[in-house]
Amino acid sequence: MKYAFAKRVRHLQSSAVREILKVVSEGNVISFAGGLPDEDLFPMEGIKEAFEKVFSSGKKSLQYIETEGYRPLREILIERMKKKGISGYSADEVLLTTGSQQAIDLFSKVFFNPGDIVLTENPTYLAALQVFESYEAHVIGVESDEYGMLPDDLEAKIKRYRPKCIYVVPTFSNPAGKVWSLERRRLLLKLAQKYHVVIFEDDPYGDIHFHKDEQYWPIAALDEGTHVLYTSTFSKTAVPALRTGWIVGPHQIIRIMSQAKQANDLHSNSLAQQALYYLCRDFDLDGHIDKLIDVYYARMTMMLNELEKANLPGLSYVVPKGGMFFWIELEEGMNTTEMLPKAVKKGVAYVPGAPFYVGRGKENALRLNFTHSTPEKIQKGMALLTAVVKEESRDCKLLE
Amino acid sequence: MKYAFAKRVRHLQSSAVREILKVVSEGNVISFAGGLPDEDLFPMEGIKEAFEKVFSSGKKSLQYIETEGYRPLREILIERMKKKGISGYSADEVLLTTGSQQAIDLFSKVFFNPGDIVLTENPTYLAALQVFESYEAHVIGVESDEYGMLPDDLEAKIKRYRPKCIYVVPTFSNPAGKVWSLERRRLLLKLAQKYHVVIFEDDPYGDIHFHKDEQYWPIAALDEGTHVLYTSTFSKTAVPALRTGWIVGPHQIIRIMSQAKQANDLHSNSLAQQALYYLCRDFDLDGHIDKLIDVYYARMTMMLNELEKANLPGLSYVVPKGGMFFWIELEEGMNTTEMLPKAVKKGVAYVPGAPFYVGRGKENALRLNFTHSTPEKIQKGMALLTAVVKEESRDCKLLE
Repeated sequence: MKYAFAKRVRHLQSSAVREILKVVSEGNVISFAGGLPDEDLFPMEGIKEAFEKVFSSGKKSLQYIETEGYRPLREILIERMKKKGISGYSADEVLLTTGSQQAIDLFSKVFFNPGDIVLTENPTYLAALQVFESYEAHVIGVESDEYGMLPDDLEAKIKRYRPKCIYVVPTFSNPAGKVWSLERRRLLLKLAQKYHVVIFEDDPYGDIHFHKDEQYWPIAALDEGTHVLYTSTFSKTAVPALRTGWIVGPHQIIRIMSQAKQANDLHSNSLAQQALYYLCRDFDLDGHIDKLIDVYYARMTMMLNELEKANLPGLSYVVPKGGMFFWIELEEGMNTTEMLPKAVKKGVAYVPGAPFYVGRGKENALRLNFTHSTPEKIQKGMALLTAVVKEESRDCKLLE
Repeated sequence: MKYAFAKRVRHLQSSAVREILKVVSEGNVISFAGGLPDEDLFPMEGIKEAFEKVFSSGKKSLQYIETEGYRPLREILIERMKKKGISGYSADEVLLTTGSQQAIDLFSKVFFNPGDIVLTENPTYLAALQVFESYEAHVIGVESDEYGMLPDDLEAKIKRYRPKCIYVVPTFSNPAGKVWSLERRRLLLKLAQKYHVVIFEDDPYGDIHFHKDEQYWPIAALDEGTHVLYTSTFSKTAVPALRTGWIVGPHQIIRIMSQAKQANDLHSNSLAQQALYYLCRDFDLDGHIDKLIDVYYARMTMMLNELEKANLPGLSYVVPKGGMFFWIELEEGMNTTEMLPKAVKKGVAYVPGAPFYVGRGKENALRLNFTHSTPEKIQKGMALLTAVVKEESRDCKLLE
């Protein structure tokens, strides 16, 4: 039988990241490809104890709960967000989701008609693009430098395209690993206010923050509770398997997203939400995050050193101030998509940069994850990778 | 700021069930309203042990997994479904979801363009209607009797509306609590094949089966793997808080749903999936379900007895052969929506029948849940309810 799928299915495809992860996970390859935290650092004891507390609290803990999610966790999140400057919200303006990915999906479901415009950084988070496209929204990339979107291009595109939403990952962005300046954050908000556009601020990495002397205010902290939706997750700081993220924002939007969620899945896993409540209450999650930061910073530094040592021609990059990714651009003419199979054959994997772009992207860029590999593997993997790059670069020149 | 929501938001609204649950959960009311299993029967020890096994299996258990869900659980489900006659599928044709509700949502996302038609029983599962409408599909109700959809009306509506899908809950339906005959199941499948329509078979209650001497084959068991999607859940047999359901069906459809799910939430809670794997493997889940059946059957019988004792004028019902719901129709002229606040005031709640209908529904119907209340509460609650009905019926007559 031939099935008549919906039009939106045209935009669905297995992501490059996913296909690579599949290949890599089968072999003996050092992978800088995924966006995985290091499982050796997972707070297993804390999680186990948290679940024991859930089960000790009685059988009611196994029953259905309200769509918005376990209220005591939402209340703890309100307090945690206050420390980042996001205030003025109550637990009624927080929706617990299946990872922050679901927050992007629910937002898109209640906002986008086919043909609606969303502005994003370029490159930006691949799986957000997939969500927007799955609701047939049209994505337009805004030009940016290392401090964030370029004001002139941003305002010009707002005026020209009248977007419904501007999607940004301003703190340790995926894939580019950069941090927006406070000035650019303020300016984005000002333009959003001026032209009545909603900002969707995706902040999965904000807590993996290498330079504690520098404070990066979320855009939501600058807002008066009207223009910004802010989403984050426990996947990078606690563990991914709990699949718990959250979104906070204007009451009316959160209400409607929660009605959409009711139809989507009634509610997310509530055992995980209860366990996270006990984890936040009784376990030193911030102390744990500090340990993660130390380890990840050392790994990023090692990756940086190996990269500098290799002395690749035409290389450019911004040193990540946090997060999980190192974004590098090789010399002009290199094609990282074509290079990938060769790298994997040599025993190292990465994500080519092109799929992260709206429209035609830079063929010579690639994304490296520095959180999931041990220092030994980073050293070995970077030696393999830089050798492949040099070989490819030589071949490139011979062809010229 | 005024927010410009998507058109599909028009169809979103907080369900009647949900609002009632909210009111009722605050007070001292005996509730026959929700669709809750009894938490006193939850296999807490089994669940606890299952989670201990997950944690003992190592830190990898806390990492991201593939979108389709934890493979060993999918393999166990393949075996469990074979016992129901659903065969010919591999784990690659099973997608684990956040409850079976998410299976309905993902199916709708990949199938429905605005204006596409879905045929359903009438009345049918309220939250499925909400999903279809959230993708702007148009729902048409098919007439039915106690054996299932009426063949003539079904074929006439297939020919007239050319639906993309026929959504059915053929075994212990929600809300009507009835079981389709084998003949009607076969006929539905034959028509679906003849007119190239997909059947979506929702079977959350099939395991809560009172008469073991009677076998009700899922429609998926009669299919050749081409026309039926079958979804079920652990929410009614194990516990709701795990939020784990699954869907099995034609390879191509499951592939595309899984790509849609990747954009939706990457994957569902994988700790729950792993715990359910150990629960299915090591705990006597079928023995546990047998115990549930005994308890729920006794409660249904008590509800039936109380109902018969009350001798309500013009009452009609079909005695449930399983599931969680008793659907009754009061005498003509009664309005169960208007009666609800009076009933709640007297200390008993139910769900009015009207919202379960496509279009204008029977005002005199109501749905009673018999799984969540103790026998004492059923006795007391039914006394309160039948007294309210009698009073209302008298008032009705006085008005005539």
